[in-house]
Formats: sequence, structure tokens, C-alpha cells
Amino acid sequence: MQEHSRAQDGPLPWPKLGSERGPDLLVCRARFDRLRNPRTGEEMKRVVLETRDWVNVVALTPREELVLVRQFRFGVGKVTTEIPGGVIDGDEDSLAAAQRELREETGHTASEWIYLGSVEANPAFHDNRCHHWLARGAVRTHELEQDPGEDLCVEVVPFADALARVASGEIAHSLVVCALARVADLRRADLPG
Amino acid sequence: MQEHSRAQDGPLPWPKLGSERGPDLLVCRARFDRLRNPRTGEEMKRVVLETRDWVNVVALTPREELVLVRQFRFGVGKVTTEIPGGVIDGDEDSLAAAQRELREETGHTASEWIYLGSVEANPAFHDNRCHHWLARGAVRTHELEQDPGEDLCVEVVPFADALARVASGEIAHSLVVCALARVADLRRADLPG
Repeated sequence: MQEHSRAQDGPLPWPKLGSERGPDLLVCRARFDRLRNPRTGEEMKRVVLETRDWVNVVALTPREELVLVRQFRFGVGKVTTEIPGGVIDGDEDSLAAAQRELREETGHTASEWIYLGSVEANPAFHDNRCHHWLARGAVRTHELEQDPGEDLCVEVVPFADALARVASGEIAHSLVVCALARVADLRRADLPG
Repeated sequence: MQEHSRAQDGPLPWPKLGSERGPDLLVCRARFDRLRNPRTGEEMKRVVLETRDWVNVVALTPREELVLVRQFRFGVGKVTTEIPGGVIDGDEDSLAAAQRELREETGHTASEWIYLGSVEANPAFHDNRCHHWLARGAVRTHELEQDPGEDLCVEVVPFADALARVASGEIAHSLVVCALARVADLRRADLPG
């Protein structure tokens, strides 16, 4: 791979001078690090939100429909449309978490599971990743298992309809878009030449 | 658009019973809301990270190269490869922020700017969006303007090489993947049938 322009040494890691435990934020825990900028020598305080890894699932039925979840989301204060997903528990690998979240949130189980890779949630201040799984042959086999903090509705739609909802902005969760981008072409059709 | 299965009423909004200011986290401010789950009637405490909107830029040179930024990221504790981007300042619209971030972080200015849409950063607990811009005809016209909290290196690479870095996982920031998915097909080539 030819690199057309690259800095000689690349940016250097920032030495960590200290670290201080921050508040518990329910979905993550804050930590405050003191680091030295290698370019300026200045000492900076930076936040890290210590967060468990997440998982989400592109679940397709035998008819190539996508399994969606609608729920009230506290950050944006409204009901969103997303693919199922959640936090990986301490004793799970990401596949087990994906299978559990699909079953609990949508009542579906699937015959084929394919790992789609992962992304960094937000490397600027989160330390975690979100792992994407493709579940094929997903069928409704269970009742939903909602915890007291959830109120979910399941929707099963033709895959093309789901992609239209990405284009329209109804499906807008960044991590959902990342997962769908592994299995579908999400390019905007309306870009000029 | 036909909906194959949809809950009758969809999930309901959660009434907010109260709200309490939380700690300042440097990149955002925490707020703790008390809400009532309409399904169970139970009262829940939930965190919202109040965060300014962000912007990022897919900047292409006249030779269809992509302008990348490498920097040490505090969340993941290592150097990452990303497209330029940052926080929208109070007096800016997202285009002005995109133009400023491209110039400050990479020294580039561009002749054509096309809005690519936006995503929700994480609707579960963030209240903000990230706006994506495509900048065409990007050329190096300025020196970098790094603030004391930054140590950036600029890299300009053929667009196909940048996509290979997404596939390899070197480019892994979820919001970068979302922006690139608007202009490139990021489907995995290795998926079975």
C-alpha cells in the first residue's frame, strides 16, 4: 500500500502521569487521567469512560427480513428504531451476548451466526468496542424477556425497507449503521457526480 | 412500505419525573433523569450525557485521495487513524465546523462541500448527533493549528487504501465508519453466500 504522505514518526503515545477514579455513570464509569502532550510537554487532564464491550445483531429471517427493535431511548428522549444489541456480560463472549440479546429483546433464535467485526465506540473517550454479528435463519421461538428498564417492541421488515429507513434517517444509531454497513451498501443515492 | 409485523401502539415515551445535574466530564456533562417505565410503572434512574453536536469530514483531494488524521486517543489509549472532525462550537453551523476542523487538523481547504447526513452518537445515553460532510477538491493551503490538547499527524492516501484500512480494522472509529459508509461500499468481501 503506497502512502502518499506520512509523517516521519507518526504521533507519539502520551505518557500517563496519574489517574483518578471518577463518578459511576450507570452505563459506564468515569476515570480522569493526567497525561503529557509529547508535542508541547504540557500536562493535560482527560476523561476516559470505562465501558464494557457491546454487541449488536443483524438478524435476518429465512425470508430475508430484518429484525428491528423499537424502544424509548433516554439520551435522545424519544423512541428509536434499532437492531437488537446490548452489553456483553462478564462471563460471556460476544457471540453468547449476541445470541442472548437477540433472544431477550426479540424472542428470536437463529441457525447461523457470522462475525462481522467490530468498531471502537468512540476512541476519544470510550475504551470499549461494539462487536457486530450477522444471524441468519432467525425465527421467533421465545417470548421477550424484558428487564424492568426496558419497554421494547419488535418489528420484522423486508431488508430493503430497513435500508430505506437508514436513508430516511429513521434508523440513525451510529453503531447500527456500522453493523448494517458490513452487509449492505449504504451509499447515498443522491450524491452529485 | 409494508410492515410485516409491528406492535399496535409502538413503545410509549417514558414520563420524566425529575432531573438532577451530574458531574462535568470535560467532553460532556452528565445529567441523571428519573423516569417511569410505562410498561411496568416502575421508576428508573437513567444517565444522559449532554454533549455538543459533532462533525466529521470525508475530504478528497483532486486525485481522489482521502485526508486522514493520526493522533493518540485517550479512550483507547493508543494512536488511531481517523478522518478529521470535532465539536461544533456554539456560534457555528455544522458546515462552518467541518471547514474549520479540516483546516485546523489537516491544513486543507476544499472547493466543494456536500452534506452527507448525520447519525445519533449513541441514543441510549448521548443527546447529540454527528454530522458528516464530504469535501471535494481538498488541497493543503494552511499550516496545522493544533491546540495544546492535540498532537496530530496528517496522512493523505488513495481512497481505496483508506477502505482497505477500514476492512483491516486499522480505521475503527464508529463515527468515521458511518461517514465513509455514505460514500463507499463497506460490505465485507468475505461473507459466505
